[in-house]
Amino acid sequence: MRLTELLGIELPVIQAPMAGAQASAMAIAVSNAGGLGSLPCAMLTAEGLRKEMETIKAQTTRPFNVNFFCHMAPVADAARESAWRAALAPYYRQYGIDPAGIPAGPGRAPFSAGFAEVLEEYRPAVVSFHFGLPSADLLKRVKSWRSKIFCSATTIEEALWLEAHGVDAVIAQGVEAGGHRGIFLSDDLSTQVGTFALLPQVVRAVKVPVIAAGGIADAKGVTAALALGAAGVQIGTAYLLCPESTITAVHRKALKSEAARHTALTNLFTGRPARGIMNKVMRELGPVSNLPPAFPLATSAIVPLRAKAEAEGSGDFSPLWSGQNATGCKEIPAAQLTRELAAGV
Amino acid sequence: MRLTELLGIELPVIQAPMAGAQASAMAIAVSNAGGLGSLPCAMLTAEGLRKEMETIKAQTTRPFNVNFFCHMAPVADAARESAWRAALAPYYRQYGIDPAGIPAGPGRAPFSAGFAEVLEEYRPAVVSFHFGLPSADLLKRVKSWRSKIFCSATTIEEALWLEAHGVDAVIAQGVEAGGHRGIFLSDDLSTQVGTFALLPQVVRAVKVPVIAAGGIADAKGVTAALALGAAGVQIGTAYLLCPESTITAVHRKALKSEAARHTALTNLFTGRPARGIMNKVMRELGPVSNLPPAFPLATSAIVPLRAKAEAEGSGDFSPLWSGQNATGCKEIPAAQLTRELAAGV
Repeated sequence: MRLTELLGIELPVIQAPMAGAQASAMAIAVSNAGGLGSLPCAMLTAEGLRKEMETIKAQTTRPFNVNFFCHMAPVADAARESAWRAALAPYYRQYGIDPAGIPAGPGRAPFSAGFAEVLEEYRPAVVSFHFGLPSADLLKRVKSWRSKIFCSATTIEEALWLEAHGVDAVIAQGVEAGGHRGIFLSDDLSTQVGTFALLPQVVRAVKVPVIAAGGIADAKGVTAALALGAAGVQIGTAYLLCPESTITAVHRKALKSEAARHTALTNLFTGRPARGIMNKVMRELGPVSNLPPAFPLATSAIVPLRAKAEAEGSGDFSPLWSGQNATGCKEIPAAQLTRELAAGV
Repeated sequence: MRLTELLGIELPVIQAPMAGAQASAMAIAVSNAGGLGSLPCAMLTAEGLRKEMETIKAQTTRPFNVNFFCHMAPVADAARESAWRAALAPYYRQYGIDPAGIPAGPGRAPFSAGFAEVLEEYRPAVVSFHFGLPSADLLKRVKSWRSKIFCSATTIEEALWLEAHGVDAVIAQGVEAGGHRGIFLSDDLSTQVGTFALLPQVVRAVKVPVIAAGGIADAKGVTAALALGAAGVQIGTAYLLCPESTITAVHRKALKSEAARHTALTNLFTGRPARGIMNKVMRELGPVSNLPPAFPLATSAIVPLRAKAEAEGSGDFSPLWSGQNATGCKEIPAAQLTRELAAGV
């Protein structure tokens, strides 16, 4: 079943939820253009979610997606935090930062009963999850009001697990994808598969519709993904230069430069592997390290470095999230980009 | 320009050269079916090459490809060799192998004047290279008899470099691909890109035709690659169960099992990164290690372990080369597989 039939939308294009890079404005624009806009909720409070839902409700009657992370809340570990700050100490000295004075960084909260409470009032067409699914009772509650459940899979095993746990569609997230890997049944990054290999194998393995994600940047990419059996596509990076994107000037500049050709999976910025453009801190500490504390606790220690560097116009310490194909980024409204992406359908 | 026009062949499918897994029989079958068969020459001597060229000449008049590695010949390093054997020592003990008695393993020779001498007599339609190109004078010699030059690129930079050095087509080798990575301008594996992202960016960057490789396993995959701008495709893994394949029973069994879902890049078997099915030695030493000597010197130390394990029906120490999508493997003649792969063109 095509994504368009499943949701009653016009275009088989999901704008990928990108926490920290966009909010309701982009979701509204994409949904009104006939695609499926997404609201990333990982960095929202329940009250923040309610506010965004009100904004969306006021500006579109079309289906949209709200997205949540489903990580286990971490246990703080003073020794790991201290080792992580020790690794960053030379940078703190360079920027004159007192590590003792670093406040807690931006949190990322998993889906919870508090969020479900708010969602129940708005009953979005789609609720999507990353890093697995919430507890069975929470999932049941979301399903009770007929929201469709989507979730990312990065391996065939994860896709089969999600199908067995009742998702309405699987998002096959190829290793090309920007931002956080949805990986949740393993922490072995060698299990991560390119879209060209993952997508057809997931399509063959599960009966639910499969959404392709990772490396898709233009109408040709959408056509190719559909040829491989996708019911629709989820595209993130290409939207990052749209006026509705909230990324920093440093991030925009990196995406427009040749630097965007070299991305890597890194756990330095949050504690979980995510794909971003290679920069100084990734190069010097190694993009994947044993040092960062558990997700999302790694975030706070790096925030003041990022702030100092960005104030000087540098992305040396910024998470410059991007997929492996940034050539589809265009400085055009998200609605227009959505229509262009679906031009070959 | 499509591959079919460039070479005057019927089907835009190159059977990937796979040293150790096939010889002239597969190349002949694929070329006679209308695709481009490939003879892998990395493990041949000049005399062995001549013999294979005679066999091919006797059995097909169609265009075919001969493939060579272009690595720098390594300098033996006794300390590294000794550290590598020390790492393998527990396994030697387990199998009762005396490491002092290990003979030199299978070599892999780079392209050379000796090979060129033989090729000049046969003037194959295509000469393809892996790990970059031979020296300028050797390349000039190959071009002088009108063979088309193809070479693998694993990044946009490598594709641009190859175009600048005069190749007739670039093979964009996505990270999904089985066997050795063609990487040659860097040794940083984080530069390696999925086919979905690499292919369209290479197509955009160079003017020469681009062949897609990596993760393509069936007719839908071929259609998708062409939609992304490929002039043709190069497919390896799907051919590994054909009767013309010379792989071991252990390797065949692994490809047919669910084990094939989990591959990794590993340098344990030769010293250069190559993709194979995850097995015991990769799991226990880590698939990518600093220990193995330079390519191809790492090979010899592991050979007796492989032989002992395979004698017991185990692939624990075997290079089980495979791409990330083994679902296209079929136990049918290579000619039939070639036609099936091109069915959607």
